[in-house]
Amino acid sequence: MKATQALAKFFPILHWLPLYKKRTFAGDLSASLIVAALLIPQSLAYALLAGLPAQAGIYASILPLIIYAFFASSMVQSVGPMAISAVMTASTLAPLALAGSAEYSALAASLALLSGLFLAALGFMQLGFVTQFLSHPVINGFTSGAAILIIVGQAPFLLGVQSNTPQLFPQLQHAMFGLSCLSLLWLAGSPLSKLLHHNKIPYASLIAKLSPLLLMLMVTGIVYTLDIKTRLIGAFPATLPTIIWPAISLNTLSQLWLPAITISLAGFLQSITIAQSLALKARRNIDSNQELIGLGAANIAAAASAGFPVSGGFSRTAVNAASGANTPMAGVMTATWIALAAHWLGDYLALLPQALLAATIILVAIRLIDFNFLARSWRYDWRDGAAFISTALAVLIFGPMQGIVAGAGVSILLFLYRSSQPHIAIVGRIAGTEHFRNIHRFTTQTDPRIVAVRIDESLYFGNSAKIQAELIHILAQTPATEHLLLILSAVNSIDYSAMETISLLQENLRARQIKIHLAEVKGPVMDHLRRSEKLSTLDGEVFLSTHSAMQALSGVKEDFSI
Amino acid sequence: MKATQALAKFFPILHWLPLYKKRTFAGDLSASLIVAALLIPQSLAYALLAGLPAQAGIYASILPLIIYAFFASSMVQSVGPMAISAVMTASTLAPLALAGSAEYSALAASLALLSGLFLAALGFMQLGFVTQFLSHPVINGFTSGAAILIIVGQAPFLLGVQSNTPQLFPQLQHAMFGLSCLSLLWLAGSPLSKLLHHNKIPYASLIAKLSPLLLMLMVTGIVYTLDIKTRLIGAFPATLPTIIWPAISLNTLSQLWLPAITISLAGFLQSITIAQSLALKARRNIDSNQELIGLGAANIAAAASAGFPVSGGFSRTAVNAASGANTPMAGVMTATWIALAAHWLGDYLALLPQALLAATIILVAIRLIDFNFLARSWRYDWRDGAAFISTALAVLIFGPMQGIVAGAGVSILLFLYRSSQPHIAIVGRIAGTEHFRNIHRFTTQTDPRIVAVRIDESLYFGNSAKIQAELIHILAQTPATEHLLLILSAVNSIDYSAMETISLLQENLRARQIKIHLAEVKGPVMDHLRRSEKLSTLDGEVFLSTHSAMQALSGVKEDFSI
Repeated sequence: MKATQALAKFFPILHWLPLYKKRTFAGDLSASLIVAALLIPQSLAYALLAGLPAQAGIYASILPLIIYAFFASSMVQSVGPMAISAVMTASTLAPLALAGSAEYSALAASLALLSGLFLAALGFMQLGFVTQFLSHPVINGFTSGAAILIIVGQAPFLLGVQSNTPQLFPQLQHAMFGLSCLSLLWLAGSPLSKLLHHNKIPYASLIAKLSPLLLMLMVTGIVYTLDIKTRLIGAFPATLPTIIWPAISLNTLSQLWLPAITISLAGFLQSITIAQSLALKARRNIDSNQELIGLGAANIAAAASAGFPVSGGFSRTAVNAASGANTPMAGVMTATWIALAAHWLGDYLALLPQALLAATIILVAIRLIDFNFLARSWRYDWRDGAAFISTALAVLIFGPMQGIVAGAGVSILLFLYRSSQPHIAIVGRIAGTEHFRNIHRFTTQTDPRIVAVRIDESLYFGNSAKIQAELIHILAQTPATEHLLLILSAVNSIDYSAMETISLLQENLRARQIKIHLAEVKGPVMDHLRRSEKLSTLDGEVFLSTHSAMQALSGVKEDFSI
Repeated sequence: MKATQALAKFFPILHWLPLYKKRTFAGDLSASLIVAALLIPQSLAYALLAGLPAQAGIYASILPLIIYAFFASSMVQSVGPMAISAVMTASTLAPLALAGSAEYSALAASLALLSGLFLAALGFMQLGFVTQFLSHPVINGFTSGAAILIIVGQAPFLLGVQSNTPQLFPQLQHAMFGLSCLSLLWLAGSPLSKLLHHNKIPYASLIAKLSPLLLMLMVTGIVYTLDIKTRLIGAFPATLPTIIWPAISLNTLSQLWLPAITISLAGFLQSITIAQSLALKARRNIDSNQELIGLGAANIAAAASAGFPVSGGFSRTAVNAASGANTPMAGVMTATWIALAAHWLGDYLALLPQALLAATIILVAIRLIDFNFLARSWRYDWRDGAAFISTALAVLIFGPMQGIVAGAGVSILLFLYRSSQPHIAIVGRIAGTEHFRNIHRFTTQTDPRIVAVRIDESLYFGNSAKIQAELIHILAQTPATEHLLLILSAVNSIDYSAMETISLLQENLRARQIKIHLAEVKGPVMDHLRRSEKLSTLDGEVFLSTHSAMQALSGVKEDFSI
C-alpha cells in the first residue's frame, strides 16, 4: 500500500488515469486540436529562433509532451518549445558552433539533457523553494529584456534583409511582405476576436483561436500560387525523431552546465507561475517539486529526440485551459496531431515563408514586454523598480544568462540592504491606555529613567552593528536612563551574532548602571534564548508585555483600566 | 566654518590635538613603551610568517602608525602587522613569487596599497555597512581555521626541521630548544602575571607585560653566549624604510585585487570590533567609515615603506588601552621607539632565534582558536554553528580567502533560507480578552467563517510562494471560510512580489467568495500599500487591530471589557 502511494506520488498519472471519463476526453480533445494549431507554427518559429533546423521544433513538441503527462502535477500545463528558452539556447550555442550544423544540433540536445537532469535533481531533492528567489520584478525585467532581444534578432528575417549587398527594390518588396504578414497576424489576434464576439458570430472563440493558423495556410498558399520571391523555411524531412542519447564530453559539460541551469530555471519559473495560478482557480494544488520532475523528464525526452530545451508557458497554457483541457492527456493528443501533421504536411510546411514565422515570434515577444509593470512596481517601491530595470538592462547589454543572474543578485542585495537598515522607534504610552506608540508620531507619556525601543526587524548579523550604533546614539541623548527596554513584537528571530551584540552592549552599559530588559519576546525566539547562556548575561528581566514592563520598571502601580 | 568642520571630520586629529594635556601625554607615553615592547618581536615574527624578510615587519610598524594617527576615529586602536593578515599575505603571494625575493616584497607592498585604496574607497563612499555581512560565527570560524593554519605552518620553524635530510640527534636538540622557548613564553604570560598579582609584587602588571620581551632578550643572550646552534633571523639593515611607491602592473592588479579585498575586510573587522567595544566602555563613538579611511591610509603608508598589509587587532589594542593610551599620539610614540630600536638594536635583533619567534606566533594563534564559541553558538542555533564549521573547514581545505568568502556565502544563504520559511499561526481569541493567540498552543474561541492568520516574517519574493501555498493549504481544510484575515503585526515590509501574490490569491479566491482582509498593518508598510493600486484589488478591509477586525467580520458587538 505504502509503495503504491509513493509510486503514485512520482507518477500522478496513476491518480487521474483510472478516473478518466468520456466528458474529460471531450475537453482534452478540443484543447489538443487548438493547441496543436497554435504549436505547429510556434514550434517551427522557435526552432529557427534557437538557430536550429525547423524540424527540431516539431521533434521537441512530440515526445516531451507524452513523457510530461506521466509526471505532471499540473493538469493543464502545455509543455513545448518557448520563445525565451529558444533565445537563451541561441545565445548559449552561437559562440560554440555554427548555427544549423549537426554539431550545433547535438549541443542543443545536450543542453536539453543537462537542463532536464538539473530540474529533475532539484525536484528529487525537494529543492523547489530555491526558485522563489527570483522576484516578480526580476522575472518581468528579464522577460521584457529578452523580448526586446528577440524582436531585434527577428527583424532581419521579417524584413528579408540579406547578408549580401541588397538591391533597393527587391529589398523594399521583402520588407513590405514581412510588414504585411505582421499586420495581418496582429489583426487575426484580438481585433478579430473582438469583432467576432461583438457581432455575436457563432463559435467566435474557436474561429478566433484557429484564425492565425488559417491565415498562415492562406498566406503560404498565396506565396506558392503567385510564386512570390521570399525566403521559405525549406526542405523538411517527413520522418519522426529517432531516439538518440546525446553523448556529453567533459568539455561540453564545462561549457553548458551554467547555461543549462539558467535556461531551466527561467523555463521552470514561467511554468510554475501559470500552473499555480490556474490550479488555484480550479481549487487544485500544485506540488512544485513534482512539477520540477515533470519538466525535467520532458527536457530529457527533448534531448533524446534531437530537440532543444522545453518548458511550459503563459499564453499556450492559458489557451489549453480555456479550450477545455482537463488532464495531461490533452498534451498526449496534441503530440499525436503534431506527429501526424509533420508526417503528412511536411512538404507543405516547408513552403512557409520565414517572414511569416518571424512575424509570429515578434507578436509573441511584443506581448511579453511589460513596461506597465515597471511603472507599477516603481510606484510601489523604488527598489522593486530598480530590480526590474537592472535585470532588463543586464539582459540587453550582457545577454539573457548574465541578466537573470545579475537580476537575482540585485534583488537579494536590495533585500539584505533593507533588512540591514531596521526601523527603530522610541515608544511612549498613549495616556490612559495600554498602548505604546512612536514618541515622534504620537503624544505620549514617558519616564526619563526608561528608554523603551521597538525594533521593527528580525535581529541578525546583517543589522546587529547598525542596531547597536542606533541604541548607543539614543542613550547618548538620554543621560538619565537606568533601563533600556527592547520591545521585540516585530522580531521574528535573533541570531547568535545579534544576541552577542546585545550581550556586549549590556556588558559595556553596566559601567553606566543601565539594565537591558526585553518585552514581547515571541515563542520561537524565546526558545533559542533559553537554550543559551546569553539571556543570563542581561541585567534586566523579560516581560510579557510593554505595559507590564513599564509598570514594573517605573515602580508605579497605576490603574490602567480604560 | 563649514569647511573647518568638514576638514575635522576627515582629520579627527584636529579635534583631539588642540586639547592635548600633560596628563594625556603620561598615559600615551606609558602605553607606547609597553606596546613597542610587544610589537618589536611580533612585527619580526609576522613578517617571517608573511614570507618576508624580518625588517619588513619593522617597516610596517613605523609610518602606518604615524599616518593612522591623523585619520583615526578610535583613540586606542593599535595598528600594525597582525597574524591573520600575515598568513593571508603568505597564502596569496606563495604561488606568485619566491618567498624572500625582491619580487615577493614588491608584491607584498602592492597588496598593502590595493588593500589601503579599497578600504579608503569604502570609507569615502560611506559603505562601512557592507562589513556587517560577516556574522560572528563566520568571523570566529575564520579566525580559528586560520590560527590552525598558522600553527601548522610555524611548527617546522619551532622544531627546527630542515628541508635537507636531518640527523636525529641535532634534530632532537632543535626540537627541545623550540619547545623550551614555547613553554617559557607561555609561563611568562598569564601564569607569571597571576603569580605576581597573587604575591602582590609592586608593578605586577608592568612586569608581566614586559616579561615576554625580557625573556626574549635573555634567551637571545644565552644563545649568543653559549653559541647554541639554532637558526637566527639573520642580518638586518639598520636603515629606516625609504618611501617608494609600488608600481602595479595590470597583471599584478588582476592577481591581487580579490585577495586585497579579502585581507582588508578581515583586518578591518578585527579592528572595528575591538575599537567599538573599547569606545563603548569609554562612552565614545566610533565612526566606522572614518575608521575605514584611517586603516586605508595606514595600509597605503605600509605600501610606501616596503611593508605589507596592516590592521588593528584584539590583543595589542586591548594592551594599549589598558596601559593608559588616551589618543593616537600613543601610536606615534610607539612608532618612534620602534624606529629607534631598529636603528640601535638592529645587530642585536638579528641574533633572535627563529624558533623563539615561531613560539611567539604559535602562542598568539592558540589563543585565537575558539571551539568554545562553536559549542555556544551551536547550542543557541544549529545554523550559527554550521556557519562556524563550514567557514573553518573551508579555510583549512581551500585556504583563508576562499574560507571567508564561503563563510559569508553560507551565512547569507542560511539567513535567506530562514526568512523563506516563515512561521504562520492560525489565531483565535483568548476568551474574555482582546488577545489573539495560536490556536494550537492556547485554548481559543474561533468563528468557522473567519480564518485569522498571523504571519511572523516580512513578506518578500523569497517567501511569498511559500506563504501562498500555506494559506491555500489552510483554506483547503476550512471549507466554511468567508473571510481570510492576515494579521501583519510582525510584518516589517511587503515587497511588490509579495503584494502581487496576495492580490492574485484574492483574484482566485473570489470564485469561492472569500475576502482577504488585513489587520495591524505597520505605518511604513501602509505607506507602500497606499502608493499602489494593489490594495484596492483586495475585496476586504484594513483593520487597525485583530480585535476590531474579528468584531466587524463576525458581526457581533460584544462587550470585551475585562
